[in-house]
Amino acid sequence: MPQNIYDREEFFAGYGTLPRSREGLAGAPEWPALRALLPELRGARVLDLGCGFGWFARHARERGAAHVLGLELSGRMLERARSMGEDPAIEYRRADLESVDLPEGGFDLAFSSLVLHYIADLGGLLAKVSRALVPGGSLVVSMEHPIFMAPSQPGWRIGEGRPVWPLDGYFREGERVTDWFTPGVVKQHRTLGSTLNLMMGAGFRLAHVEEWCPTDAQIAAEPDWEKERERPMFLLIAARKA
Amino acid sequence: MPQNIYDREEFFAGYGTLPRSREGLAGAPEWPALRALLPELRGARVLDLGCGFGWFARHARERGAAHVLGLELSGRMLERARSMGEDPAIEYRRADLESVDLPEGGFDLAFSSLVLHYIADLGGLLAKVSRALVPGGSLVVSMEHPIFMAPSQPGWRIGEGRPVWPLDGYFREGERVTDWFTPGVVKQHRTLGSTLNLMMGAGFRLAHVEEWCPTDAQIAAEPDWEKERERPMFLLIAARKA
Repeated sequence: MPQNIYDREEFFAGYGTLPRSREGLAGAPEWPALRALLPELRGARVLDLGCGFGWFARHARERGAAHVLGLELSGRMLERARSMGEDPAIEYRRADLESVDLPEGGFDLAFSSLVLHYIADLGGLLAKVSRALVPGGSLVVSMEHPIFMAPSQPGWRIGEGRPVWPLDGYFREGERVTDWFTPGVVKQHRTLGSTLNLMMGAGFRLAHVEEWCPTDAQIAAEPDWEKERERPMFLLIAARKA
Repeated sequence: MPQNIYDREEFFAGYGTLPRSREGLAGAPEWPALRALLPELRGARVLDLGCGFGWFARHARERGAAHVLGLELSGRMLERARSMGEDPAIEYRRADLESVDLPEGGFDLAFSSLVLHYIADLGGLLAKVSRALVPGGSLVVSMEHPIFMAPSQPGWRIGEGRPVWPLDGYFREGERVTDWFTPGVVKQHRTLGSTLNLMMGAGFRLAHVEEWCPTDAQIAAEPDWEKERERPMFLLIAARKA
């Protein structure tokens, strides 16, 4: 059985309070940077891996995408996504990305926002995603940065000067268990090199690798984000099927 | 004037005591991993950016390289390199990589070991290296990892448990001044994403990204290296001119 924290009452309630859950893409500070990596959406057939409440699926349709297949493990999230608007060109499907079967060769874009760091068999999923894309098709993803995920005791250490991020365990790949609205959330730590090599091994040509940091304007609006300049939280990658 | 720490008496004396200076490639723990990224050397025309004592130039020739051009800022290092064996197919040339002119289109491999993190205009150098390579030519480099270089106070913090690497300043790109055999050694910090994007922007297709970590056998032989598993020290990259 896959981990499905999302349908737990306490997780779903807590997750629903996040700006990115309430406001959608506009509530996700990394969205402008991720959006800049997207190919033309007009006419595109889009695969959304872990579509959540469907914010990106609806965005893609607003931008002219021909069709969106949104895959999501959480039944509650899919229910909410469906309740936010019927669109015959968006198909929501409940699926476990660890074992999903994907149709081959029909997609122009595979998108995934903050989901891949939960996947144990990332190489297996990427191979299926690669086969699902047309030649030249795009892969655009965000995930937790391994520097953020690696530590045995993640959390800022505030000393005399700037906050410091106590890194350890970078090369101990595998499970990281954390509490996030609910106890025992399991994530999968991989080095940045491992993630990139898995993508290249699945037949992708890397196009852009961004370790996300808030902009000056974002920090001016949210001064507490200043410390996000000390270490990366998100990793954004654009690649193309070779 | 470029920084030339290497010709300072104290630096040269200290640097000469390192295993990698005394024993050459066999004294560099990351060498087996870097070597695994190399293309076939037989018949290759090789450009060595920052050739130091010429260890790699001689290795390439032993493996059948047709010609090696070794560029090095340090006159003392070049003198030592030349003293270690005459070979008409190795040309050592004193050059500052920040402003060097490279011949165009003649090389099959550009190699650089632990030098690029001193270069301020990495994009400019990579553009010249790209033009110096034949189509399909290889770029294989090692450099200091940005996690290693970023902190305002680099150095292990030993607490109750495992050693921890106090990361900060990851997104403050630019100079890092450190003492290494001589005071005031200036390095250039860039995020991993920036380095990879500069390479792709210069026309390289990434092939492998490795954040080096000692093997079990190396740690068994040098137990103090155990802590190198906590954070990456070296970054190894293989790419091809697209």
